[in-house]
Amino acid sequence: MHLPIGFRFAGVVSGIKSRAGARDVTLIVSDTPCIAAGVYTTNQIVAAPVVVSRSRTPSDTIRGIVVNSGNANACTGTRGHRDAIEMIEHAAKAIDPSGKLSSEQFVVMSTGIIGRFLPMEKVKAGISAAAIELASDEQAFLNACDGILTTDIARKIAERKFELAGQPTHIVGMCKGAGMIGPRMATMLAIIITDAPLEAAQAQKLLQTAANKSFNCISVEGHMSTNDSLVMLAALPSSLRPALAGQDEAEFARQLLDMAIELAKKIPDDGEGATHLLEIRIDGANTDADADAVARNIALSNLVKTAITGGDPNWGRIVSAAGYAGVPIRPERTALRINGITLFDRGEPLPFDATSVSRSIKASKLTLIELQVGMGPGSAIHWTTDLNTEYVRFNSEYST
Amino acid sequence: MHLPIGFRFAGVVSGIKSRAGARDVTLIVSDTPCIAAGVYTTNQIVAAPVVVSRSRTPSDTIRGIVVNSGNANACTGTRGHRDAIEMIEHAAKAIDPSGKLSSEQFVVMSTGIIGRFLPMEKVKAGISAAAIELASDEQAFLNACDGILTTDIARKIAERKFELAGQPTHIVGMCKGAGMIGPRMATMLAIIITDAPLEAAQAQKLLQTAANKSFNCISVEGHMSTNDSLVMLAALPSSLRPALAGQDEAEFARQLLDMAIELAKKIPDDGEGATHLLEIRIDGANTDADADAVARNIALSNLVKTAITGGDPNWGRIVSAAGYAGVPIRPERTALRINGITLFDRGEPLPFDATSVSRSIKASKLTLIELQVGMGPGSAIHWTTDLNTEYVRFNSEYST
Repeated sequence: MHLPIGFRFAGVVSGIKSRAGARDVTLIVSDTPCIAAGVYTTNQIVAAPVVVSRSRTPSDTIRGIVVNSGNANACTGTRGHRDAIEMIEHAAKAIDPSGKLSSEQFVVMSTGIIGRFLPMEKVKAGISAAAIELASDEQAFLNACDGILTTDIARKIAERKFELAGQPTHIVGMCKGAGMIGPRMATMLAIIITDAPLEAAQAQKLLQTAANKSFNCISVEGHMSTNDSLVMLAALPSSLRPALAGQDEAEFARQLLDMAIELAKKIPDDGEGATHLLEIRIDGANTDADADAVARNIALSNLVKTAITGGDPNWGRIVSAAGYAGVPIRPERTALRINGITLFDRGEPLPFDATSVSRSIKASKLTLIELQVGMGPGSAIHWTTDLNTEYVRFNSEYST
Repeated sequence: MHLPIGFRFAGVVSGIKSRAGARDVTLIVSDTPCIAAGVYTTNQIVAAPVVVSRSRTPSDTIRGIVVNSGNANACTGTRGHRDAIEMIEHAAKAIDPSGKLSSEQFVVMSTGIIGRFLPMEKVKAGISAAAIELASDEQAFLNACDGILTTDIARKIAERKFELAGQPTHIVGMCKGAGMIGPRMATMLAIIITDAPLEAAQAQKLLQTAANKSFNCISVEGHMSTNDSLVMLAALPSSLRPALAGQDEAEFARQLLDMAIELAKKIPDDGEGATHLLEIRIDGANTDADADAVARNIALSNLVKTAITGGDPNWGRIVSAAGYAGVPIRPERTALRINGITLFDRGEPLPFDATSVSRSIKASKLTLIELQVGMGPGSAIHWTTDLNTEYVRFNSEYST
């Protein structure tokens, strides 16, 4: 991996998670103040760490990110807010015992069970241990990635390396999420780090734009979390390397979006129990927002998701889900393809070989659903999971 | 049962359903023209029979209802429309071979798989057979009830008998539905018959009002069907018995709503694989519509539904679902009770005995969720199912 220079990482075992040896505290530190942008859940029931981090971004004085997994510190009232503040105060002191760092220079994230108070002694001991382990090598980065996971099976990372004005430029990202993945926000925890020089407001705009076409276009079951946070750290501009502009900014935005999509897709791909990743492409809506509404409605339908689980080309479920998305479609111009095979065209069912469509669904992890809704130029893509008995079993047994 | 006088019923086996001996064609006939009101799906992808029936209600000249199960005649284009018309033309002729009945005097309903053409020879033979079997006794009524079922395990009927101005008055109802049960419409097929005298416009208004607080307040997985139809037949007013007014109309409305709620709740109670019926009561929203939005959002969350399946008082899932319903709530005044036990109050988690809450969920088919959202006087009730592996298995295997 090509990690941006000037950042150190750690992920340690603090015992918040009950599983032995599971890393659950992550620390990411910038050697000098850096740019930070953030996109957070729009849920009104919002976790304490989100309230704290939201007030700190965008910024050009951030020194680091503190994360714990295994406990969301959500719905924990005033005590939860005090605990979130204590996490960053403790991090500031642990990283620079001389007291020169302010807790205002840190953002904080939590993920895990809702409604339980954080075990602060474990959390603080974990932060202290992580501060000692901070390092800039790849293993430290991977440990940090592991420290943010909860029910994820797979570690989720992505990177881009490209040149901007002759300078090698890097973007690396990590994220977590496998359940409580819902629409209309920066879903899950994700951290992106780049050595590209950006102004704070510019970084915020670029991150929000990328989030809208990546992390905001995925779901597992559509339940919007209280803790979703996406934070990007970027280099401070200087006289040697001023903030990106023009073509360079456009190229950076393209690379950022491309990587964000790669990272975001890893979440439904690792959805709890998922055996399929559904890519839902909508064309022909009045606007992109309308297309997005249709894609989401299909993605939220348990009947669509279970049909894919069963390798069943029960396309009536997909078409009917498009019909109640709350945006106009033209049934007599609607057309549906599954894995490239047209099943429904201009409002009429086509004869098709159900066995071969079924076989194509069963043969691949990815199922491609393409729906034309016959109104205008709007399009959208959404990625989600199928729904199978493993998801239900898992979520019937999680927590208590 | 006390069936209204002047109606005859039949339910026969025509072979549309593959299961041997399953009734799949139902005929309900009024001996004289009667009042008919209808409430239908608001899905833009709408089945042919809904298009036909919608154009015929409200009316004061209706003579009957033709229903087939096993095939929804949805997404079947122009041929599907011709088939729906042919069903009622055939029914008019079968019931009165002299040709005095018009197909305009019939409404038609279909339910079953989407996207297949009706096997019209079977359907017409079934209608002919049903016309011969028409009778006014209870067994004929029960056969008619069975002929509209699809994946339902239980037959769904309800009745009310009461006096209006000294006259004995009856309402009887039947409905079907266990999957593809979603919000914001008259969900499923339901037929209500009364001997109360009503004007057509009055019947329409009374039916819509009752639907809004009953059939529109249930869901299984929230997928809005293409075929949902609720039709009420009522006696024509005459000089002997004028249309209901004043106190009598109010009492009829009360009885109608009460029966409609009883009937509607039978649907999630029989939801595919359901082991729990969730009653979600929201108080303290700005308006009833806001409360309804919160209730629906909780009802649609797979995470809430699987928690109940597992007997798991994972209340964070419920509170967080309330937070992204798109209507304002006040987190610091939010309070949650499950089966009468308060778990969360004024934004703070309360200590509670998880084992006893879990035991109370597991001990009863009904789970009561009461959420106060701290804004205003708005309230709503919604009924839904839990989500378990049986639902997923069933819907992964249905159809092809």
